[in-house]
Amino acid sequence: MNKLKLRSLIEQFFIEDIGEQDITTDLIFSDNTKGEVVFLAKETGIFCGEDIIKTGFQLLNPQINIQLFVKDGDPIERGQRLAVASGEISTLLKGERVILNLIQRMSGIATLTRKAVETLDSSFTRICDTRKTTPGLRMLEKYAVRCGGGYNHRYGLYDGVMIKDNHISFAGSITRAVDLVREKLGHMVKIEVETETKDQVIEAVEAGVDVIMFDNRTPDEIKALIKLVPDHIITEASGGIDLNNLGSYRDCGVHYISLGFLTHSYKALDISVKVSMSE
Amino acid sequence: MNKLKLRSLIEQFFIEDIGEQDITTDLIFSDNTKGEVVFLAKETGIFCGEDIIKTGFQLLNPQINIQLFVKDGDPIERGQRLAVASGEISTLLKGERVILNLIQRMSGIATLTRKAVETLDSSFTRICDTRKTTPGLRMLEKYAVRCGGGYNHRYGLYDGVMIKDNHISFAGSITRAVDLVREKLGHMVKIEVETETKDQVIEAVEAGVDVIMFDNRTPDEIKALIKLVPDHIITEASGGIDLNNLGSYRDCGVHYISLGFLTHSYKALDISVKVSMSE
Amino acid sequence: MNKLKLRSLIEQFFIEDIGEQDITTDLIFSDNTKGEVVFLAKETGIFCGEDIIKTGFQLLNPQINIQLFVKDGDPIERGQRLAVASGEISTLLKGERVILNLIQRMSGIATLTRKAVETLDSSFTRICDTRKTTPGLRMLEKYAVRCGGGYNHRYGLYDGVMIKDNHISFAGSITRAVDLVREKLGHMVKIEVETETKDQVIEAVEAGVDVIMFDNRTPDEIKALIKLVPDHIITEASGGIDLNNLGSYRDCGVHYISLGFLTHSYKALDISVKVSMSE
Amino acid sequence: MNKLKLRSLIEQFFIEDIGEQDITTDLIFSDNTKGEVVFLAKETGIFCGEDIIKTGFQLLNPQINIQLFVKDGDPIERGQRLAVASGEISTLLKGERVILNLIQRMSGIATLTRKAVETLDSSFTRICDTRKTTPGLRMLEKYAVRCGGGYNHRYGLYDGVMIKDNHISFAGSITRAVDLVREKLGHMVKIEVETETKDQVIEAVEAGVDVIMFDNRTPDEIKALIKLVPDHIITEASGGIDLNNLGSYRDCGVHYISLGFLTHSYKALDISVKVSMSE
Amino acid sequence: MNKLKLRSLIEQFFIEDIGEQDITTDLIFSDNTKGEVVFLAKETGIFCGEDIIKTGFQLLNPQINIQLFVKDGDPIERGQRLAVASGEISTLLKGERVILNLIQRMSGIATLTRKAVETLDSSFTRICDTRKTTPGLRMLEKYAVRCGGGYNHRYGLYDGVMIKDNHISFAGSITRAVDLVREKLGHMVKIEVETETKDQVIEAVEAGVDVIMFDNRTPDEIKALIKLVPDHIITEASGGIDLNNLGSYRDCGVHYISLGFLTHSYKALDISVKVSMSE
Amino acid sequence: MNKLKLRSLIEQFFIEDIGEQDITTDLIFSDNTKGEVVFLAKETGIFCGEDIIKTGFQLLNPQINIQLFVKDGDPIERGQRLAVASGEISTLLKGERVILNLIQRMSGIATLTRKAVETLDSSFTRICDTRKTTPGLRMLEKYAVRCGGGYNHRYGLYDGVMIKDNHISFAGSITRAVDLVREKLGHMVKIEVETETKDQVIEAVEAGVDVIMFDNRTPDEIKALIKLVPDHIITEASGGIDLNNLGSYRDCGVHYISLGFLTHSYKALDISVKVSMSE
Repeated sequence: MNKLKLRSLIEQFFIEDIGEQDITTDLIFSDNTKGEVVFLAKETGIFCGEDIIKTGFQLLNPQINIQLFVKDGDPIERGQRLAVASGEISTLLKGERVILNLIQRMSGIATLTRKAVETLDSSFTRICDTRKTTPGLRMLEKYAVRCGGGYNHRYGLYDGVMIKDNHISFAGSITRAVDLVREKLGHMVKIEVETETKDQVIEAVEAGVDVIMFDNRTPDEIKALIKLVPDHIITEASGGIDLNNLGSYRDCGVHYISLGFLTHSYKALDISVKVSMSE
Repeated sequence: MNKLKLRSLIEQFFIEDIGEQDITTDLIFSDNTKGEVVFLAKETGIFCGEDIIKTGFQLLNPQINIQLFVKDGDPIERGQRLAVASGEISTLLKGERVILNLIQRMSGIATLTRKAVETLDSSFTRICDTRKTTPGLRMLEKYAVRCGGGYNHRYGLYDGVMIKDNHISFAGSITRAVDLVREKLGHMVKIEVETETKDQVIEAVEAGVDVIMFDNRTPDEIKALIKLVPDHIITEASGGIDLNNLGSYRDCGVHYISLGFLTHSYKALDISVKVSMSE
Repeated sequence: MNKLKLRSLIEQFFIEDIGEQDITTDLIFSDNTKGEVVFLAKETGIFCGEDIIKTGFQLLNPQINIQLFVKDGDPIERGQRLAVASGEISTLLKGERVILNLIQRMSGIATLTRKAVETLDSSFTRICDTRKTTPGLRMLEKYAVRCGGGYNHRYGLYDGVMIKDNHISFAGSITRAVDLVREKLGHMVKIEVETETKDQVIEAVEAGVDVIMFDNRTPDEIKALIKLVPDHIITEASGGIDLNNLGSYRDCGVHYISLGFLTHSYKALDISVKVSMSE
Repeated sequence: MNKLKLRSLIEQFFIEDIGEQDITTDLIFSDNTKGEVVFLAKETGIFCGEDIIKTGFQLLNPQINIQLFVKDGDPIERGQRLAVASGEISTLLKGERVILNLIQRMSGIATLTRKAVETLDSSFTRICDTRKTTPGLRMLEKYAVRCGGGYNHRYGLYDGVMIKDNHISFAGSITRAVDLVREKLGHMVKIEVETETKDQVIEAVEAGVDVIMFDNRTPDEIKALIKLVPDHIITEASGGIDLNNLGSYRDCGVHYISLGFLTHSYKALDISVKVSMSE
Repeated sequence: MNKLKLRSLIEQFFIEDIGEQDITTDLIFSDNTKGEVVFLAKETGIFCGEDIIKTGFQLLNPQINIQLFVKDGDPIERGQRLAVASGEISTLLKGERVILNLIQRMSGIATLTRKAVETLDSSFTRICDTRKTTPGLRMLEKYAVRCGGGYNHRYGLYDGVMIKDNHISFAGSITRAVDLVREKLGHMVKIEVETETKDQVIEAVEAGVDVIMFDNRTPDEIKALIKLVPDHIITEASGGIDLNNLGSYRDCGVHYISLGFLTHSYKALDISVKVSMSE
Repeated sequence: MNKLKLRSLIEQFFIEDIGEQDITTDLIFSDNTKGEVVFLAKETGIFCGEDIIKTGFQLLNPQINIQLFVKDGDPIERGQRLAVASGEISTLLKGERVILNLIQRMSGIATLTRKAVETLDSSFTRICDTRKTTPGLRMLEKYAVRCGGGYNHRYGLYDGVMIKDNHISFAGSITRAVDLVREKLGHMVKIEVETETKDQVIEAVEAGVDVIMFDNRTPDEIKALIKLVPDHIITEASGGIDLNNLGSYRDCGVHYISLGFLTHSYKALDISVKVSMSE
């Protein structure tokens, strides 16, 4: 992740939560009291959030000391100590909720991604994300997908061409749409086409696109369609796939399965903090 | 919601997704083609997002015309048309994903909140949210909770005093913590205390706080504790409550039940768009 | 105060004053010359501005060393040394005016607030501020009021309900306005009603609001009205009160007197700086 | 004033006051109710704030209609109607306080400036401001000074050279300081020197600076010193001048008198609003 | 281009130039005078800047009317009228310089790119840009390259993999570097490798990268190397190529030639404005 | 330069280039590898960029160590080592391109300015810049002009009055335009008038402006006109002057020659980096 961008995001999140001041803590605590906050896993999952904890507390107060006992992508067990931050207790109290809000969500995504990877259980087919991320958090959520063992689809509308039904119908055909794009497109951008029929797959192959997406196809349909696609073209299955039917795609031979739910319907992983004052 | 803040948030979200340009659409579409995008419910739930659809498209292009068929807080059925935006199709294609990403999440929260309200099924006890919101989206998520029939707890650390275990142990006692706060606190801010024992409840009552929270108590424990609390003090149950055991709190007499999962573990409501070109 | 917000405010203020560069200093001083700037009180008052001096200079140059001889809220005498900042003299020259502009205003507010508190001379009734603050400086000015011994009214439109005449006349009655608010309002927000007549006070009491404001009432009128208000409802006098008539409110029994002039018509406290080069 | 900058300032000020929402108004008013807000002078003075009223309300809602009955710089009488804004009443209620906070201050500065101009009562000597403005509001406050009949000193450290005692003592002499500056300075920037003694005035004249400031001099001292200064060099008196002794400077022959109190110790002009609903 | 981003960029550029106000124009012009500004080509080249002219003036004042006589990418002749903006003349005077500063640069890049394309004179090999753009203007400059008939290389470090000598030497070999990247990289990102030797070309081909760059090779060297590269791998020549030797690369068979000078050493195209008042 | 502004500019430029991450470097490098990057001159010129290198790398990572072997304004030779940055190699790789993009442009401007100064070869007449700078980079480019031995014209529309043909024709005459300006203008701002005829020069002299510009005049015309201008009025030649005819202005007696091409048509100075890993 870009650390300048991360720092500026977290700063904005702290300002959202703290506003003019943490009234409770400011009225009760004197500045010099020291303490520590321990991050504890309350359930089993995949951790994601090293940089959040480090950058977060040090943004509030560079004197805060951080120890991390896990790495991004590590499996964690219920009850496991993940990290300790120590220093001025009023800083710790002001910062812990925002940091938790981020690492619980990121760990939730990493955990769900890992579960998808394990459910699919394929050494060939990879799991990837979509643009269905939480607005404002795309950099963090796509990072979390990677920590869970998934892969990133394009970051936004700017770094990959995705020709969908409306583009095709405006252009007249896949071939024409691809031609229009190629006339102007630089050589570092890949072209993907969404296909819904066998004819479209054939047309896409002939157009020589980089990636062919099978939209809302069953595993059996994909197995049949994929025979039409030469090896050097990447294939992707998308639409209508959830943890229940994901396993059935194990052997259909597609390179990537993109799953919107990884980032739009994850549950925050239960992580808690225990704050304590130094004696 | 504050519309100036909303506009600036959505602008930032569009920039996150569009980046330098929507390469696909810019290379295929000529500017003048008109079309429309229809928002359709793919599952039953509570809608939330009127202002997102209106503000979103008009930020991209003030010529886009919006018709809304539902209001925030309305129940929606699978298959129902929610809204239509019409105008320059390239604008519609650039904007629909970010708008969907927001309204699916907000409707997901509204739907989950409504479910909690219905599960609790109480005309006395209210459901409320927490600070466990997605960083950057608190204004939107707290609005969605209201649309679902829930209530807002404090917005952040700045607009309500919440005395927790660390504050109590630093101050020495609830009484002392409340005294410290009252010495400096303005008269428009409420004071809530987290209590874990019967003695703490008694002490909080004597300290005359505005709100007493019962942290991680069973319905029966709350029933017993609540007898110690005079009518004009508001009570809140928090911790360890989910949709499975929420019903059991129906008759415990507490005023508010705060539920973190409303905003940290909701699923996006399935809403899709159908984009079409004008003939 | 929220230090992240403070830092970003002061940065913006320095940029306003320095622009592209301090031409004079940049053309005359070589970088390494050291010096110090002493802050001196030129009149008697209450000091406010510790964090401004510290955060301000260190934002410009982390090598600047700060010694503070007073604390926020301390009474200061004409001629008293308040603080010394030492280090690169070109930094000191660039920063001193903006810092002075802030601490003179904040100390001016603290001083005026203390004067109001002393004029009122009551151990029961408290002085508080209003929303009549300088746009952009609310966090700083409300802090200064606290340093002077005053209390903060709500921070903005978002953290307290204040039902005024227009709200009442739209709703139809105080009772109806309060009901409308209560239907949706969370439990951490207080409700205040502005009253202008005895009947309105009675109605507000019956509606069970948290705070009743007596708008533009004389001390005698308040004494009479306050008998209608039970002890647990907070009362506030507002409107038409200045330093001349404030003393007459001493024994009227109101809890709070809100004074707009604390933040809209204060005079900057005279504080000067003496900059000198190290030998 | 730069309207892009003005718009962005006012937007930031509204966000400061409204936060997530105006809870009171949002919970009571339905969107369509129309009304108007009348701005009334409560005391005599000089008006300043046309652009604030227009830009302010239209930023919140472009449908708001504004009528202005006065121009910036116009004298206004107690009881005079200054402006009417009409449209959605909930917008009017959300915006009026911030707009008042600005125009009261700006009119306060314009009024005080006019008073200084009238007190001085000179057709030769002009009143000007300083850098002692409220941080964040310099553009607005310097505009208000102009509306009151005063003139602007430099805007900041970037648009005028001001050689002060520290610069002189580092350089070794006024002559040397001016030489250092001239070696690098562009031809569109003026050079002013602060002088404290007759010798310094003589040296400054010889150095050929554009402006000579007499720091903390009495009218008689200035009369004597000014004879040493050729006509084409502008002179400025500064320091220790207030409304009480300002008249005594009437005939001392100085071109400009700079007054810090115009912007650091003004009182907000009393302007009130009367909001009413349309029938 | 993303219009939200464009608007925010131009706003920032106007604020840079106008600052607190355009003193000259504000002191001389009364608001209502109308006029027009005509943009004229002073030399032959390729025009680029439609959106700058439209967005620019309308940001300052939505009443300004714009007529454009050319399209982005059109060749223009010395003396040709490019556009007319009409409306409030004080707005036109405030905006013209910043708009000129942008369109002269963008047209300069488009013109230089067109010259490179014509110099190369190949129907096979394409000209593309690099990351050597002016900081802050990349979106605009890359757009200008496209208008001149060139193509865009990656936008930044985020949307394309470029394996350079340091990456190779850290990884140990091209093969290993590509493997490391592939392990984690999503399928929408292309991989390019910089090669300096024949062995590296062979290794890159075997590693199956998407793009092979020949760094600092002569046309003859490229002709030889390109025989080692299968058709489906894109080739790029880079380094040491200028307008003088560009023609010699005409038949070397490479797909892309990337030219840093297109964006780092262009000359602004001479475009002037003629402002006139309406009678 | 204002370091707060500089830091915020460079941060924004890094975010433009790095986006969400440097994919290549993040996927290949492990964090702890150290290395260094050497900046080398590839051609002869004037260096400008000390603060860019220092501020740039330390913004990305405060642990990076910087050694500078040249100062801003120093002449540099082809092959000369300019600076070394050492530390975490992944940081060095992420930062070098943006830093190069800036220092190459700034050194290009400094070099071109020095060339103009040397071409003019006058101990009397000075070279200065214009407002024809790259939008967003004015502070940096005007600094570079100073490093090359040139002088800065006004920074923007806010810090100097420049009366041009449209102002004159609206006002009716130079005299009237100057009067209008003087009525309101503060004493720290200079007034320049663009003149096109002998009569205008005479009128400007009589109006007593600070600076007279001869627009598009030959050296001989200037020699004649300048006799009409008293010594204390500064003169400036502008328009139609390039490196070819600049020498002919050597003895025309004008104080300043302003050259737009210094900032709109410079070439980036060729500076390269050599990155290497520590053993």
